[in-house]
Amino acid sequence: MSAITDDKHLLENMIASEQVWQGRLLDVRRDQVRLPDGAEGVREYVMHPGAVVIIGILDNGQLLFERQFRYPVGQVFLELPAGKIDADEDVLRTAQRELLEETGYVAQEWRHLGVMHPCIGYSNERIEIFLARRLERRSAPQLDHGEHLDVLELSLEDALAAIRRGELTDAKSITALFWAEKVMTAGW
Amino acid sequence: MSAITDDKHLLENMIASEQVWQGRLLDVRRDQVRLPDGAEGVREYVMHPGAVVIIGILDNGQLLFERQFRYPVGQVFLELPAGKIDADEDVLRTAQRELLEETGYVAQEWRHLGVMHPCIGYSNERIEIFLARRLERRSAPQLDHGEHLDVLELSLEDALAAIRRGELTDAKSITALFWAEKVMTAGW
Repeated sequence: MSAITDDKHLLENMIASEQVWQGRLLDVRRDQVRLPDGAEGVREYVMHPGAVVIIGILDNGQLLFERQFRYPVGQVFLELPAGKIDADEDVLRTAQRELLEETGYVAQEWRHLGVMHPCIGYSNERIEIFLARRLERRSAPQLDHGEHLDVLELSLEDALAAIRRGELTDAKSITALFWAEKVMTAGW
Repeated sequence: MSAITDDKHLLENMIASEQVWQGRLLDVRRDQVRLPDGAEGVREYVMHPGAVVIIGILDNGQLLFERQFRYPVGQVFLELPAGKIDADEDVLRTAQRELLEETGYVAQEWRHLGVMHPCIGYSNERIEIFLARRLERRSAPQLDHGEHLDVLELSLEDALAAIRRGELTDAKSITALFWAEKVMTAGW
């Protein structure tokens, strides 16, 4: 990677920032920026609190998955458990909370694998990737109001086959699953 | 995968849809929806025209990459060439156009690998993944107004190492690179 000093010809600097819309979920901003060539530009984006995604590996080797209708796309998605970070919440705590709420499982062993940015063109969201092992079913899922999903188990092999066939297209889940394969087969 | 008939308990249906903000880039919607349990809910999301990402493999085996400042995140990202689909544009044409505009290369051989959804919680964006081979440098990059980026070459091995080290965190690029490794090593 190049040092920061090599990046001056790429940097954009804020001139002014405005919140143009605030909903229950979305916080939309429009900034005036100084472009690297000195011209002015506009950047529009969503402010996001960040999220976690969890690869939960059961003692039988199967992974925990969910099927959930995603209204913006209008499809049911096969995806890994995931959720937004609450204000001031430690990210490991988020992962533990979301796994329990969405699947009813707790895990004895947690490992942070890395971070991804899902939508760098128009959102500041980051997603922290966690691997959870030594799982134990503690309760039924405790879903938020308005949240409806099915919990299911799939092997990593079957999940990768679903990616190949185009039946698992959620990028956070694809990234996390390929990463999990590297952990299991290449010592990542 | 379950048949559609199994998904009735997950589906949400539109009651009303409203465009709540329209910028130069972002089209923000807020819909009233009927949840599976009969209650009403609100869904906020961004309407997106879709995009492409391109794994461009040079004759020397290196892949084409870009370094670009992404204002929403406030960082320079190492990423694959990518861009939005123009209205009524064929997606292969988008991939060819973006590769030429951003890197100056044309390719003799194109293969569509699959599709990912980067942001299913609050955007309808899909990203079509293309593999491009037999590349030839045709011109200097022809960047859009306000677009500043560096083009560079990296081996797949070095790119995967950058993912592992946390230096390549763009989810569309991670997904496409892991997919490219499957093409090269597992016959995908």
